[in-house]
Amino acid sequence: MTILDKVNSPADIKTLPSAELNELASDVRAAIIHRDSQVGGHLGPNLGVVEMTIALHKVFNSPTDKLIWDVSHQSYPHKILTGRKAFFTDSDKLGGTTGYTDPKENEHDFIRVGHTSTSVATAVGYAKARDLQGKQENIIAIIGDGALSGGLAFEGLDGAGDFKNNLIVILNDNEWAIDENHGGMYRHLAALRESNGTLENNLFKSFGLDYKYLDAGNDIEKLTELFESVKDIDHPIVLHIHTKKGNGYQPAIENPVVLHQMFGPFNPETGEYLDQTAPGRAYDDVIGEFMEDKLASGDKLVAITAAIPMFFGLMGFAQKHPENYIDGGIAEQYTVTLGGAIAKAGTRAFIFQYATFLQRAYDQLNHDLALNEEPAIVIVKGGMIGGNNDTHQGSFVNSITSNIPNIIDLAPASEADLKAMLNWAYNQHEHPVIIHLSERGFETRPTRVTNFSQPSYELVKSGEGVAILGLGGMLTTAEAAADELAKVGVNATVVNPHSINQVDTAVLDKLAETHSVFVTLEDGAVDGGFGQKVASYLSQKGVKVLVKGADTIFIDNTPQDELFTTFRLTPALIAEDVKAAFEQPEARGFIKKLFSK
Amino acid sequence: MTILDKVNSPADIKTLPSAELNELASDVRAAIIHRDSQVGGHLGPNLGVVEMTIALHKVFNSPTDKLIWDVSHQSYPHKILTGRKAFFTDSDKLGGTTGYTDPKENEHDFIRVGHTSTSVATAVGYAKARDLQGKQENIIAIIGDGALSGGLAFEGLDGAGDFKNNLIVILNDNEWAIDENHGGMYRHLAALRESNGTLENNLFKSFGLDYKYLDAGNDIEKLTELFESVKDIDHPIVLHIHTKKGNGYQPAIENPVVLHQMFGPFNPETGEYLDQTAPGRAYDDVIGEFMEDKLASGDKLVAITAAIPMFFGLMGFAQKHPENYIDGGIAEQYTVTLGGAIAKAGTRAFIFQYATFLQRAYDQLNHDLALNEEPAIVIVKGGMIGGNNDTHQGSFVNSITSNIPNIIDLAPASEADLKAMLNWAYNQHEHPVIIHLSERGFETRPTRVTNFSQPSYELVKSGEGVAILGLGGMLTTAEAAADELAKVGVNATVVNPHSINQVDTAVLDKLAETHSVFVTLEDGAVDGGFGQKVASYLSQKGVKVLVKGADTIFIDNTPQDELFTTFRLTPALIAEDVKAAFEQPEARGFIKKLFSK
Repeated sequence: MTILDKVNSPADIKTLPSAELNELASDVRAAIIHRDSQVGGHLGPNLGVVEMTIALHKVFNSPTDKLIWDVSHQSYPHKILTGRKAFFTDSDKLGGTTGYTDPKENEHDFIRVGHTSTSVATAVGYAKARDLQGKQENIIAIIGDGALSGGLAFEGLDGAGDFKNNLIVILNDNEWAIDENHGGMYRHLAALRESNGTLENNLFKSFGLDYKYLDAGNDIEKLTELFESVKDIDHPIVLHIHTKKGNGYQPAIENPVVLHQMFGPFNPETGEYLDQTAPGRAYDDVIGEFMEDKLASGDKLVAITAAIPMFFGLMGFAQKHPENYIDGGIAEQYTVTLGGAIAKAGTRAFIFQYATFLQRAYDQLNHDLALNEEPAIVIVKGGMIGGNNDTHQGSFVNSITSNIPNIIDLAPASEADLKAMLNWAYNQHEHPVIIHLSERGFETRPTRVTNFSQPSYELVKSGEGVAILGLGGMLTTAEAAADELAKVGVNATVVNPHSINQVDTAVLDKLAETHSVFVTLEDGAVDGGFGQKVASYLSQKGVKVLVKGADTIFIDNTPQDELFTTFRLTPALIAEDVKAAFEQPEARGFIKKLFSK
Repeated sequence: MTILDKVNSPADIKTLPSAELNELASDVRAAIIHRDSQVGGHLGPNLGVVEMTIALHKVFNSPTDKLIWDVSHQSYPHKILTGRKAFFTDSDKLGGTTGYTDPKENEHDFIRVGHTSTSVATAVGYAKARDLQGKQENIIAIIGDGALSGGLAFEGLDGAGDFKNNLIVILNDNEWAIDENHGGMYRHLAALRESNGTLENNLFKSFGLDYKYLDAGNDIEKLTELFESVKDIDHPIVLHIHTKKGNGYQPAIENPVVLHQMFGPFNPETGEYLDQTAPGRAYDDVIGEFMEDKLASGDKLVAITAAIPMFFGLMGFAQKHPENYIDGGIAEQYTVTLGGAIAKAGTRAFIFQYATFLQRAYDQLNHDLALNEEPAIVIVKGGMIGGNNDTHQGSFVNSITSNIPNIIDLAPASEADLKAMLNWAYNQHEHPVIIHLSERGFETRPTRVTNFSQPSYELVKSGEGVAILGLGGMLTTAEAAADELAKVGVNATVVNPHSINQVDTAVLDKLAETHSVFVTLEDGAVDGGFGQKVASYLSQKGVKVLVKGADTIFIDNTPQDELFTTFRLTPALIAEDVKAAFEQPEARGFIKKLFSK
């Protein structure tokens, strides 16, 4: 029987002999590695905070005292210690918990969160509500692992500095973001660590906050002492705690970037993925080659990421061209405004963003890039239906990028499309261009379009009666749906729209003469996206339009196949709906006579 | 002849005898007051930086050296000194310049900007492009007047701290934001001022930046010396300069909040508006009374603003209920996450946001409020077509708020609507609720709807053939358009939709049985907004829908009447378009036979 076997809730930690706490830490660590090695998950961040989490639950009284985990990808030890260890130890249940905190899952969780930098602002809110309600509990935010560079974290610290009562902010300083930390601040954090927290210059004190430092951030006894010393404190304080990312697991210590998050099963002995199949050619490669070609020809350009170079295969580029690469840290607003300004100043800028994180930079897309007609090229990945947690849902991205003036918002359906779009975007200087990479596989079909300044719907297959517009990666689904219709004798037209936000009215006008049902397909939510713009235009004409994509709902960790059935996006269901559209009666018998009065 | 008469470009400042520079400052100040007192505009911020601007243009070589003004509402002295003084001195031309920098207006301007906190990130971009292009000029960001509290400013400082070459960040510390500054950081800035910049603890040094302080921020000679000392510097530095907001103009010094920005003509002797008509009852009053009633009944609640209480009539509430009021400073992300957390913790939160600034908090609406089903009430103002500068355009707000799950996104058409929505929103605990206040006047019509959890389109007038849906303040336009149609014998139906994002399919289904043309009206861009959702639903049925609102374009300072004609939103033009919709042929003759093969 392990020590962890005896721990079913935080109360059990409080009664454990001190000598057994380190053994508990080993058990928790083993449970995390056990789960992650089989189903994937965040690894390094969780291994680094095992001891901190044990000490927190020993000292504080969760859930009366409230732990607010930033990002919450480091909440596995917390989950294990708050009644959810079966999800980590019981092989049948490993997929049973999401990778993030979830109040619907457990009373010790307060916020569903997956984006960084929100915890301090959230904690101030909980503390303010506590005070108005006349309660007394401790409110504790745990932030770190790169999350401090997001603007909202600073706004939160500034707000916390104005707060007058109990509020504890733990800075989990593991020396790392997802990638390594960036920004001048991280040199300051290093100096604070080197001085054992005694440096007179202190970022946190600048925000009006009290401050304590602990170097031994993986020492349960010292952590316990520290937490005891601030429990029920009557003002806001930052506890700067130096932890070791991947602590206790050599592969994660040696390779912190790769073992930050594991995307599938791995060998727990070595940390190596079980599936060692080399990835095939991807859209990333096309963009990388394009940038390399331009640099080789003597052009100036900059590739910019907000701490996720590995999502775009940029690690090699970064090493080879340090002067042409900027990792702005987890700071989406900064990276968009920065890239826009570089483009405005006459140097080409490629800004790489993940759909869900780009939500942070809506204003910068609008007020900076678009209003100033900055010809930056924004590459967006992760815009799709499902395939992730609801905390990182990419299905809303079309409603963000496609409703802003001046932006040319593009969705390539193939390598040739992507190359044509890159070429055109690179050689013009009037518009910000956003290119959404498909998450539905690498396609090599040819393209006939080379100029994207105007809408340029491409007829991939000419038919009559029914026209199916398949945006980006949905073009293959459009073709498959046309094949289904062919089986019942209908020769459907298939269109590659290329553009998300520009409606090709000339093509639609022409098609409306010989087509009476239109279908739009997009790999994202329909609200505010591609298809509704097409429907809005066509609805003036009285033709029927079926706008197909996802509903505006949060979707957690659901297989894409299942979602495509739910949203009637499979070829067979599309064909079925087209048939029904022809069969449904039209309620417009009196239309002609209204104005004849 | 004044000194200003001799200054037509920055070159003229460089040759002026030092003794004449102070006189030039007086001339510039008089020009600003002259213009603003006749057409309105930002006042205090500009008066505070007259001397700084003269010294900048004396020392640096604009436009080779680049001045990047944050917000740019303090760029009037810069405009006056860079060839645009006629817009301030010539009574016929006072409206001829926008209130913000504009590269299309003048070569000394680089960025069109009106939101805060972007200048440092922009300057890093310009500096990076300069280095890659092998150029040598100085890049200078001028930030202050409250803009430092926005998260993007900190992200920018953090990025600047990583930069290796010339970059000058001027912190224009006038001790004020639009409202007074908030956040713990402002106590630190005060301490830095008190120590004459010698304090060991230093926020800017924490970000890895060099630092110099000047207390005499309105002394041209000392400013000149300071700028000379950092010209062509080889690394990033912050110049913390203590200026006086409203300097040289007693009314602006005494009343810095009111005289921050003047919204119309005023008496230059007193700073008092010429039009002293008391404002009539407004939607602000309805919300203020609602919050007062709830507090009086013993409820707990918090009203939150991001530095713009005066836009919502919250000044009195703030004074009366300091414990129930939070001004988070210019930090939209923070205020949304904070308010959401307060609501999640069981205390009611009202978050007041201006449409254009809410763009900063898209991710917080989605990932914090909506994903966590936090029942905060967000009050949005300024969502409208035109009526402002393109830097502050509110017409995009529906595409931001109406495409996020879980949010109930509402547009009241009257006081009764607003009261009903507040009541319902306050008494439920499942949804964040966004209420968009109309900018088209205070309406007092009754409402029949009390529950907004489901879509609740209200039939204001029953007719046949044509249905006009007027969202929020557009309901009166819908009625007026129906009156126009009545003149030609058509009895149109008029609908108050109440909801922006929830389509009332039951009502639309019913209407589609007896109506063949639908019209949607919204005071904003159609892309991603209300009408396209309606059109998307109805387009399955083959009825005609005219989606009316603004195009997705930037609009600068254009009268709303003109825009309503351009976008065919006047009652007469709406009626005309409805008639045309009935007359246009439908290209669907073969629809029935397609599947009969």
